[in-house]
Amino acid sequence: MFFASDNWAGAHPNIVAGLSGAAGGLSTAYGDGALDQAVYQRFSEIFEREVAVFFVATGTAANSLSLTTYNKPGGISFCHRESHVIEDECGAPEYFSGGSRLCAIDGALGKIDPHNLENTIGRYAPEIVHWGRPMAVSITQSTEVGTVYSLDEIDKISAIARHYKVPLHMDGARFANALVALDTTPAEMTWKRGVDILSFGGTKNGCWCAEAIVLFGLDRAGELAFLRKRAAQLFSKSRFVAAQFDAYFKDGLWLDTARHANAMAARLAAAIEDSSSASLAWLPQANEVFAVMKKAEAERLQAAGAAFYDWHRPLGFDGHIGEDEALYRFVTSFATTAEDVDRFGRLIAG
Amino acid sequence: MFFASDNWAGAHPNIVAGLSGAAGGLSTAYGDGALDQAVYQRFSEIFEREVAVFFVATGTAANSLSLTTYNKPGGISFCHRESHVIEDECGAPEYFSGGSRLCAIDGALGKIDPHNLENTIGRYAPEIVHWGRPMAVSITQSTEVGTVYSLDEIDKISAIARHYKVPLHMDGARFANALVALDTTPAEMTWKRGVDILSFGGTKNGCWCAEAIVLFGLDRAGELAFLRKRAAQLFSKSRFVAAQFDAYFKDGLWLDTARHANAMAARLAAAIEDSSSASLAWLPQANEVFAVMKKAEAERLQAAGAAFYDWHRPLGFDGHIGEDEALYRFVTSFATTAEDVDRFGRLIAG
Amino acid sequence: MFFASDNWAGAHPNIVAGLSGAAGGLSTAYGDGALDQAVYQRFSEIFEREVAVFFVATGTAANSLSLTTYNKPGGISFCHRESHVIEDECGAPEYFSGGSRLCAIDGALGKIDPHNLENTIGRYAPEIVHWGRPMAVSITQSTEVGTVYSLDEIDKISAIARHYKVPLHMDGARFANALVALDTTPAEMTWKRGVDILSFGGTKNGCWCAEAIVLFGLDRAGELAFLRKRAAQLFSKSRFVAAQFDAYFKDGLWLDTARHANAMAARLAAAIEDSSSASLAWLPQANEVFAVMKKAEAERLQAAGAAFYDWHRPLGFDGHIGEDEALYRFVTSFATTAEDVDRFGRLIAG
Amino acid sequence: MFFASDNWAGAHPNIVAGLSGAAGGLSTAYGDGALDQAVYQRFSEIFEREVAVFFVATGTAANSLSLTTYNKPGGISFCHRESHVIEDECGAPEYFSGGSRLCAIDGALGKIDPHNLENTIGRYAPEIVHWGRPMAVSITQSTEVGTVYSLDEIDKISAIARHYKVPLHMDGARFANALVALDTTPAEMTWKRGVDILSFGGTKNGCWCAEAIVLFGLDRAGELAFLRKRAAQLFSKSRFVAAQFDAYFKDGLWLDTARHANAMAARLAAAIEDSSSASLAWLPQANEVFAVMKKAEAERLQAAGAAFYDWHRPLGFDGHIGEDEALYRFVTSFATTAEDVDRFGRLIAG
Repeated sequence: MFFASDNWAGAHPNIVAGLSGAAGGLSTAYGDGALDQAVYQRFSEIFEREVAVFFVATGTAANSLSLTTYNKPGGISFCHRESHVIEDECGAPEYFSGGSRLCAIDGALGKIDPHNLENTIGRYAPEIVHWGRPMAVSITQSTEVGTVYSLDEIDKISAIARHYKVPLHMDGARFANALVALDTTPAEMTWKRGVDILSFGGTKNGCWCAEAIVLFGLDRAGELAFLRKRAAQLFSKSRFVAAQFDAYFKDGLWLDTARHANAMAARLAAAIEDSSSASLAWLPQANEVFAVMKKAEAERLQAAGAAFYDWHRPLGFDGHIGEDEALYRFVTSFATTAEDVDRFGRLIAG
Repeated sequence: MFFASDNWAGAHPNIVAGLSGAAGGLSTAYGDGALDQAVYQRFSEIFEREVAVFFVATGTAANSLSLTTYNKPGGISFCHRESHVIEDECGAPEYFSGGSRLCAIDGALGKIDPHNLENTIGRYAPEIVHWGRPMAVSITQSTEVGTVYSLDEIDKISAIARHYKVPLHMDGARFANALVALDTTPAEMTWKRGVDILSFGGTKNGCWCAEAIVLFGLDRAGELAFLRKRAAQLFSKSRFVAAQFDAYFKDGLWLDTARHANAMAARLAAAIEDSSSASLAWLPQANEVFAVMKKAEAERLQAAGAAFYDWHRPLGFDGHIGEDEALYRFVTSFATTAEDVDRFGRLIAG
Repeated sequence: MFFASDNWAGAHPNIVAGLSGAAGGLSTAYGDGALDQAVYQRFSEIFEREVAVFFVATGTAANSLSLTTYNKPGGISFCHRESHVIEDECGAPEYFSGGSRLCAIDGALGKIDPHNLENTIGRYAPEIVHWGRPMAVSITQSTEVGTVYSLDEIDKISAIARHYKVPLHMDGARFANALVALDTTPAEMTWKRGVDILSFGGTKNGCWCAEAIVLFGLDRAGELAFLRKRAAQLFSKSRFVAAQFDAYFKDGLWLDTARHANAMAARLAAAIEDSSSASLAWLPQANEVFAVMKKAEAERLQAAGAAFYDWHRPLGFDGHIGEDEALYRFVTSFATTAEDVDRFGRLIAG
Repeated sequence: MFFASDNWAGAHPNIVAGLSGAAGGLSTAYGDGALDQAVYQRFSEIFEREVAVFFVATGTAANSLSLTTYNKPGGISFCHRESHVIEDECGAPEYFSGGSRLCAIDGALGKIDPHNLENTIGRYAPEIVHWGRPMAVSITQSTEVGTVYSLDEIDKISAIARHYKVPLHMDGARFANALVALDTTPAEMTWKRGVDILSFGGTKNGCWCAEAIVLFGLDRAGELAFLRKRAAQLFSKSRFVAAQFDAYFKDGLWLDTARHANAMAARLAAAIEDSSSASLAWLPQANEVFAVMKKAEAERLQAAGAAFYDWHRPLGFDGHIGEDEALYRFVTSFATTAEDVDRFGRLIAG
């Protein structure tokens, strides 16, 4: 009954096997080996156009380097108030870029409200040096609270970014979960919507350590190569990331693991719905479930072996939380089993 | 006959097995899991005192964060002119520290000459803001040209660092190779000599991706935790590094792989000595061999399948290199086989 | 009828005379001359304790270096949402500190609301690297909208900063205007309230270019000397700032010019009150007056030679602004004349 | 007998008068006033083409922002080993650029040796991320040791910069002294030689505080405006710099003060030549004189009221300095009088 986070899991057996299989032999280092090249090519196929791919060590690195790719003096990037880049990265995006700013935009349930974005970004006059100037817009797909931007919603954000001549970044730490939730294609969810650069995460969805920056605007690829090396994010035995992605993409493993995690979230949500002691805060769309319940009940569940965290009330959630209640987050992953969810279901059913 | 670099190898079977064995189950993320904790403890045992251990993604990160741990405005770190931090890291140490400077010190065959260090560091008056001020001294063990500082030589550098009140950093990307070459202990080669912070590399010696900062001055540990996270070097599934180090240390694997690599270098050096077409540039002490030979001969060897690189003439090497000759570097690793060395020996013997 | 800004004025005749008088003779450069030393001593007298004084070129430099004096990885400084540091400095505080963050706190009429500050700063747990951590609190005295923190209000902010173990910075670009408005002493308004570091501005109050950082926590003085030089803010002919401050402090000139500017603001406010076409938005406490009037009326006044700007509605102002109306800012200075204010009074009276 | 430095002088009477004359009236702030605009225009006339002019507070700021205008990840700027940017600015150029590197090039008597430059810059392969890459070349005119690059020498450096596709920066802290020494025009000494950006100093030559960046490549002007503001180098009452430059250029004052300083240096050199107790180290070309003499003699002169400093032996000076001797630097300025030089001449004559 482990729902603490999707990064508490280890690696999927296929990923492990892929890594083991690639361990022998000698190969060019620093991302230029045959397996690296093959995986880059695979990314281009998956995204249905030529892309530039840069493996990095962490999601924080992917996000920080993505924004820094479009760095400029006085630059301001706009992101959701509760996004990972602004809440959970210790200021890495600002640090990587030597002091650019993140500007928090409000919006319900983890998604930037286009009106708020427009109102805020529209305040900056490009020629006034005092105020700084827009540098990028960043959205998270799926969001920190398990919701998913529809294609139409991405279009709306993208149009604003285009209007103000700044690139659109997507933090895809849970890219696959959103993709299968929308039942769409990688191309449709990214560059066809106007996304310029993507943090593509594999770690939360079954890899050990497989994060990549996918760059659609190839003219920046040369600079990003230097940015990555200077940020100490260029692996020597880069093959070990390539091997993970190779297994990740093989036979659609990545979509299967994401579908599984989402399905486990739905199963968990149903169990919570059915219980009398907890209620869903909002409908889960990906692999995170949020519920309101009495603190005493949460403690009972945790004492019985269920692992999950309490969570702060996100913007746009106006559900009632009583004095003796709290909001709780449950995360599922490739490693979550139906048995475990059902065991939790029986536990919460009382 | 692969002697291009030690990071062209994959991972040692024991490392692969360790990683596979740790893939199941759920564990606290971000370096706080049980296996992480056990490995930190193992480091303390190996170094015979309590140390703080920080896993990072690359040797460049280990070096850059180590120096940044002692960052100060106007800070200047002193390193060998041909060291990795100044030659091969795209300015990462300067970038991580927001603009501190690396100052190149000369010395024969990859090692800082203490007199040159003293003459240079001694020029700075601590109270004069215009000049900047010493911040750290960094040495590489083993060096970029396969030599090894003796304990006495480390003492001499260390005494200067102490005199000028700056910490001593050791770039141990090839720490194990130096350790077994000196037949000493980790404690003797580091903090007992006055080393304050160490980049401890496992990647070149059989791991996929296992680099750690070992901090002896524990008072800086709290800051380094923030520095690492802000630099996007905190792995979520940190366990995957811990599992590698766990296997690396088990039954002295790391010493065995280093001894093997060094032995292969010695075997290769002997073969070169025995040949009439190449001559050793200097005696190898770790896992790198440098030889002078005719360019035509090098091309013949490469055409026959031997992989190795030409190299620039290092400081302090005054051997003769003819017009039609060049200096070449050969690197051995855990994966180098005696058969392969012997095959090369037969090839070079003509 | 010039009320556009207090930095559109030139220099007070006494400042000009002081500068002229100091132009001859030779003097140690870089802040160590006799006149510099005398002025540092004068600061200590004025603040009734030993302080360290650092001249800098701009208010932006004073603010940015003040915050950077307390820089730390993942650091977050808390300031009012409409403060100069976050709104008008092109990200300089973030840049100077290599990526620390400014966090906007709401509060009515330019002043941080202590409850909002406590709620926000209290969210950070010092040991959690992901979130970053509090680094400083910054208040502006007088504020961007011409209001002034009472001593009691400063105490409240200061207590929170102390509780969370972060220093308190005061942006005193209009320090003198606040000081005379409160009819208190420099000591009472700063370190006796818990202020650790102060941006002390002379430029807006009659100097050409005279800004200083006043540091009460002397243990940071050595570092700040390096920070200032590295930021290219150490004047060679530092004497030219000292000469301005010397004249500024002589016979209480600085208090006279501030009282004059404040009195002109009060006179202007009275004229606006008396008019039927404009109404005071809130009571001015220093040298800035804000009024609501019809846009057509503003255009009429401007066409007749009055210079002033429209302004965005600040937090906490809930006065009515009609469709055809706007909020306007009027700033007075040492150079504003009663005649000019009265002329404007007649103009607005219609 | 004051020869310690040219920044120990105050301001020229004409500069003082100009500043006083501009103190009244009201003017747009932040560099957009009428006087600012007129001075920008004057710069364009002086340089015989349209230039973009940015006033800054210090020579360090001018140099650091000039190099940062061409900043790139992994960037390396090449300067003389004894240049001001690398020796006397506390790492400001590295800090401003977020960690770019300065690479020291050797050359006799303060001037970069073109062969050394070519050999060093030529080592970098643009596509190899590990090494970093050339970003700029910086020369100082006149140099730190009072020598002057001939136009032909600038051409040689410039050709190398062009070949390697990096801009050429000139540190003109003593621009006027070099200009009159060469008896050439500002255009001939800069952009006609291939200089892209210039630190134009007025402070050492009679101003209080008047430094400007002169940008010949106008396409970078928009970025530099943001860079300057973010670096806290945009003066609000910018007019006070403009007024100084206005007086500086009027009736060729700047050329007169430079000619005077250079003439005083020549007069001083002649006196030293004539003495039996000191000898010129090399021929002065601008306003700095270097002499070798017995330490006891130097002490005698200083005790008698002469102010000057000892100096380290520069590259390329192979003159004999005895055990009991040292090298000394004497600097003249607009404020040096013939009487004072002659007084020193009599003193040294014994």
